[in-house]
Amino acid sequence: MVLYNDCVRPPFLEKLCGAWSRSGSFLCVGLDPDIERVRKCLPNSDRPVFEFCREIVDITADLVCAFKFQIAFFSSCGAEDDLAAFIGYVREQHPSIPVLLDAKRGDVGSTAEHYAKEAFERYQADAVTVNPYMGWESIEPFRRYDGRGIAVLCRTSNLDSEWLQDYPESDPVYLRVARAVAERNEGDLMLVTGATYPRQLKLVREAVGDMPLLVPGVGIQGGETSVVVKNGVDSVGRGLLVSASRSVIFASDTPQFKDSVRAAAEQLYAALKISN
Amino acid sequence: MVLYNDCVRPPFLEKLCGAWSRSGSFLCVGLDPDIERVRKCLPNSDRPVFEFCREIVDITADLVCAFKFQIAFFSSCGAEDDLAAFIGYVREQHPSIPVLLDAKRGDVGSTAEHYAKEAFERYQADAVTVNPYMGWESIEPFRRYDGRGIAVLCRTSNLDSEWLQDYPESDPVYLRVARAVAERNEGDLMLVTGATYPRQLKLVREAVGDMPLLVPGVGIQGGETSVVVKNGVDSVGRGLLVSASRSVIFASDTPQFKDSVRAAAEQLYAALKISN
Repeated sequence: MVLYNDCVRPPFLEKLCGAWSRSGSFLCVGLDPDIERVRKCLPNSDRPVFEFCREIVDITADLVCAFKFQIAFFSSCGAEDDLAAFIGYVREQHPSIPVLLDAKRGDVGSTAEHYAKEAFERYQADAVTVNPYMGWESIEPFRRYDGRGIAVLCRTSNLDSEWLQDYPESDPVYLRVARAVAERNEGDLMLVTGATYPRQLKLVREAVGDMPLLVPGVGIQGGETSVVVKNGVDSVGRGLLVSASRSVIFASDTPQFKDSVRAAAEQLYAALKISN
Repeated sequence: MVLYNDCVRPPFLEKLCGAWSRSGSFLCVGLDPDIERVRKCLPNSDRPVFEFCREIVDITADLVCAFKFQIAFFSSCGAEDDLAAFIGYVREQHPSIPVLLDAKRGDVGSTAEHYAKEAFERYQADAVTVNPYMGWESIEPFRRYDGRGIAVLCRTSNLDSEWLQDYPESDPVYLRVARAVAERNEGDLMLVTGATYPRQLKLVREAVGDMPLLVPGVGIQGGETSVVVKNGVDSVGRGLLVSASRSVIFASDTPQFKDSVRAAAEQLYAALKISN
């Protein structure tokens, strides 16, 4: 399915395609606002998580095709209201940039409905990450929200996941997930494929054709941007959201963090430029 | 490993063994307080989720070996503070009953640390459910909290998960998860194995020896209690937390719900009595 050539694209994909064109970039900045580190950057703030996220977003907005928020960093310190308020801020100030909620939810259907409500009604995210272990029943409730995107974990970036995702060797779980997601895709689905496994990223792209891949693992985790782009782009030179979090947002743990963040984002922007 | 015979048991397992002995029951009541249905039971309450949970817990406390809270039902309506306050209530009023947080988290290590903080520091749960798709790195941060329990998804109760969990036929993913968890178990780990797959439940028990299995899927989902007990108990006739949620807590969606809840719980209690 050559989704990008369709006359009518589903809203999430339309927004993403617009963001690729406008930014000319595969860079997705991930916001993992670890409160301990945030306090070093903003020692005098009354609302450090919100303010820190606002700074990061405003500093990098012209360089990115998406922002990704990791919900765990808000949940661990009870900052859900900050997350909701902040996604509202991005939608208002940078309405053309898609917002991904990285929540990796996965549960039986009646529970998944509530997770979908959390992601799309409470937080108003454009897209959410989900875990495929519990099957389609756990993913379908998210698809009922027209116009939103869903990124399904496929070959994740972390070590130590081979024993499940790369098993069995003959036709591993991650490829099975990739094919099943591609078969069901109606322009709302994506796959999460880590930059740290470039060979598998290539195999996923070959298996699924043109659909967006969310690729974490550049930066701290060590994935190389040039290999990611080479192995990951689709038939029209699009199809990637390459996510970097800590290496950008905590480029410097000091009150003078802004220049370091901008420099780190610019460096990745240059490496992740869309060439056509 | 015959954990139940050890002189010194880890704190979570000690608490669970005490709860089995005191209640004489494998019944775990699951709290999935869907706000729409809760409002039908308590139409005039200012704090319906908290009050409803309190009623359910107080009505069923003498019949259960554990309570399980499904976090999605709190997150979808922004009731995190109710969840934290309520777990505090259970720990104060029913301190001998373990509280499980059903969150099914799973992420890279640095993020998993924040999910562990959420479950064990913010909510003070005795145990939490986790998803194995991202491997051990995503589970280890939870184990650093001494004395807490971790239930790893193995063969879940829902239809539609066969394509991943039962794959490949020769040595399926769920059994691979079961063996890997059993090998690493130091008295802190459990497995989630659905009542709707009794054959697989038996195979899991045979594979892992004596360790607790959290078994959802009786009640609405259709799993039979007698088969669960027969196939699931360990060598000393313990080892099960059989979880029922909607069939107990929403036995009646009316302001007269209390008697129906008690009756439904008593019926399951009788079917899930520990026989020695």
